[in-house]
Amino acid sequence: MTAPITIVFPVFPGVTQLDFTGPYQVLVRTPVSSSGLTFSELARLEDVERCDVICVPGGNVVEAMLNKPLVANIRRLALGARYVTSVCTGSLILGAAGVLHGKRSACHWAYRDLLPIFGAIPDPARVVRDGNFISGGGVTAGIDFALTLAAELTDAPAPPLEAGRPDIAPGEVLSRVQERYAGMLAPHRAVAEQIAAANRRDTPL
Amino acid sequence: MTAPITIVFPVFPGVTQLDFTGPYQVLVRTPVSSSGLTFSELARLEDVERCDVICVPGGNVVEAMLNKPLVANIRRLALGARYVTSVCTGSLILGAAGVLHGKRSACHWAYRDLLPIFGAIPDPARVVRDGNFISGGGVTAGIDFALTLAAELTDAPAPPLEAGRPDIAPGEVLSRVQERYAGMLAPHRAVAEQIAAANRRDTPL
Repeated sequence: MTAPITIVFPVFPGVTQLDFTGPYQVLVRTPVSSSGLTFSELARLEDVERCDVICVPGGNVVEAMLNKPLVANIRRLALGARYVTSVCTGSLILGAAGVLHGKRSACHWAYRDLLPIFGAIPDPARVVRDGNFISGGGVTAGIDFALTLAAELTDAPAPPLEAGRPDIAPGEVLSRVQERYAGMLAPHRAVAEQIAAANRRDTPL
Repeated sequence: MTAPITIVFPVFPGVTQLDFTGPYQVLVRTPVSSSGLTFSELARLEDVERCDVICVPGGNVVEAMLNKPLVANIRRLALGARYVTSVCTGSLILGAAGVLHGKRSACHWAYRDLLPIFGAIPDPARVVRDGNFISGGGVTAGIDFALTLAAELTDAPAPPLEAGRPDIAPGEVLSRVQERYAGMLAPHRAVAEQIAAANRRDTPL
């Protein structure tokens, strides 16, 4: 971009965060920093005693792999977790933590060949499961990975990964989703009609 | 989920935020609230004088559509913006703001039929462009939408939307990406080998 571009994302109570953070990721590839997007309500990793799942995201992981307290805390939590998981190059951090030895793992394709350095077995699948190790490939595999993990955590049936649009979803899946949406559609329609009617009465928009 | 599940996402400087927020969206569908994921470094919408792009994310938009200051500020910014954009049901908020009249727009398929209430023309495409209005369909279309917008903002060539994996990417696209990654792979490999060697000298992991 030649000149700075100002983009406003109005974030409101009830917002679907990924509607914001997905485009944001593409438009401004940003680290957690004091400018741009930051996350709050974070806990210090060393203060987390245990967890059921540890999920290590990727990114620019050179600094993270060399960060001994970070890697030690990830190792500590991973050893006590029910599921040890990662997205993208997060698997390299798990490798650096010494917990991937002998495990099949996904990774962004451009960095996948580094896994054997940590004794891990690279797997090109979008979502890879080896016992209680579950990993997603590149960043866009993160959602499929999470659907797989969610099914595991909830005793839900396997996620319908190939059912993302009504025209390709199996009939049974589509019916169930339509039933669930039916109750939500009515209030949306009522509010939309109310606003449209009010606007017709007011000055033209 | 029957019992609360503790999931830890270690977020480090350099993290790819979507590696975290993509799975997070699936695993905990959360609004912007005082618990769970929150965003900081936000500006008050009424304090934003103008922007080049306004991008309205979706979510549970009933409350947002009824929020008069929110809708008025979105309308004000949209009228001065170079690009007026939305993801998912964000297009219903643009509709409520009265700026979609006569425009083709995307929306989550379950709510798409509400667009005509605001005079907009529903379009089932994943990314829809009508003049300087660009919209994405459901939440997972947000990334394709943003690639389209990024190409528009940067005079870049059209994004290779069907090139997300090395095995399906056109040779020319793959070569260019491999060239770009080559310089980043070397430091990752050096650090990985250094850590692996140190671990072999230390106590077994």
